Amino acid sequence: MGIRNIKLTIAYDGSEYHGWQIQPGLPTIQGVLTEALRGLLGDRARVCGASRTDAGVSALGQVGLIQIDSPIPTENLAKAITDRLPPDMAIVEATEIPLGFDVIGAVKSKLYRYTIFTGPVRPVLQVKHCWHLPGKLDTAGISEGASLLVGKKDFKSFASGADTREDTVRTIFRCDVTAGGEAEDGWVYIDVEGDGFLYNMVRNIVGTLTEIGNGRWKPEKIEEILEARDRTAAGPLAPANGLCLIWIKY
Amino acid sequence: MGIRNIKLTIAYDGSEYHGWQIQPGLPTIQGVLTEALRGLLGDRARVCGASRTDAGVSALGQVGLIQIDSPIPTENLAKAITDRLPPDMAIVEATEIPLGFDVIGAVKSKLYRYTIFTGPVRPVLQVKHCWHLPGKLDTAGISEGASLLVGKKDFKSFASGADTREDTVRTIFRCDVTAGGEAEDGWVYIDVEGDGFLYNMVRNIVGTLTEIGNGRWKPEKIEEILEARDRTAAGPLAPANGLCLIWIKY
Repeated sequence: MGIRNIKLTIAYDGSEYHGWQIQPGLPTIQGVLTEALRGLLGDRARVCGASRTDAGVSALGQVGLIQIDSPIPTENLAKAITDRLPPDMAIVEATEIPLGFDVIGAVKSKLYRYTIFTGPVRPVLQVKHCWHLPGKLDTAGISEGASLLVGKKDFKSFASGADTREDTVRTIFRCDVTAGGEAEDGWVYIDVEGDGFLYNMVRNIVGTLTEIGNGRWKPEKIEEILEARDRTAAGPLAPANGLCLIWIKY
Repeated sequence: MGIRNIKLTIAYDGSEYHGWQIQPGLPTIQGVLTEALRGLLGDRARVCGASRTDAGVSALGQVGLIQIDSPIPTENLAKAITDRLPPDMAIVEATEIPLGFDVIGAVKSKLYRYTIFTGPVRPVLQVKHCWHLPGKLDTAGISEGASLLVGKKDFKSFASGADTREDTVRTIFRCDVTAGGEAEDGWVYIDVEGDGFLYNMVRNIVGTLTEIGNGRWKPEKIEEILEARDRTAAGPLAPANGLCLIWIKY
């Protein structure tokens, strides 16, 4: 059959893992997935991910690339791999794509969702997948601040120090805040779509927006922070648990 | 101040615990809660629960009774206890009630919710709080079968053998099936409210209803099962993970 290039859409609860990237002796998404792939496809199987999600970050639509020469039909792959994964990981879809596809470079946009719970009582069933910030959040103010992040801008102030990339310009297509729902039940979602993200960028954005939400800063502060090109100008890093990579578009 | 009787409303993710009831050497809800209470209130603190939820079963509204002679104000208790609990447990509310209140005997009704996911891909973020049954479920049929359970009836066929109570008559006030939601997204909820439940009764009801949902049985089969007064007449036991005790009314 020759070698096929397969694009995997991967979902995982990241709360029990040390992030995407394989690390000796630690449970990671890439490590556990590679083990499952080797059981199914042989010892040389490896997977290249589109995003290196941090420890504690979850995904519903991470993308990974594998090359296989196994005769197993593409339409059976998602289930066959999932059957070898722990319950907190699953392959959503497996599709064949042309050889030479660049799983990192060809990304057009990614959507991250950050979940905050503002109710008074810790939400025990979702506690690993949200940031619990009891008390009133000014979601209109957050929304106004968020709108100032949209566009092609230099996001250096929102990149954690470990990011050594020179080019800190990225395009945010949208930064939407959804609050309350029909029942005004305390859940707040911040959806950030962009063509790429610097290290910790979404979590630094969320931490900054919550400083607007709690009244410490005015929404216009966002412009000042962007201009500063300095991490210390922005707000705190939001916890990893609230973050989920929803999808990646090519 | 004298002794006060305090009713606690307790929420927990049961997936990492061996059920409510204290057991030496095993993590249980009552055990962890008792430890937190003793840290706050002294070595004699103990809690009596309204429902002995099984291993893996969660709760948003379990009720526990404690007696305290500490000067700590009642309105501070919920937070003070929660601060000593792990993230997957919380005290929702603490209220003072008259001495002599019978936390088990005074129950008027309880609501359990059972969650099923019928989509093709394992829901990684909710996998510990649902039963994943990929494929089509006839929710209209389940609903019809569920309606035949409502009323004051002998539920002996739905009690697991370990239940040795002689009186197997209980009243089910409602058994409602909610499917799909706005997005027809694969989630099915079975809400069962009753004045009391036999051992494993909700899970045996759900396992039986899914046999209607997958077409093996007709809805009318429920009447035949009730008449049999025999556990082997009913369907399989549904997994504990999908079950959650929503509230208890007095």
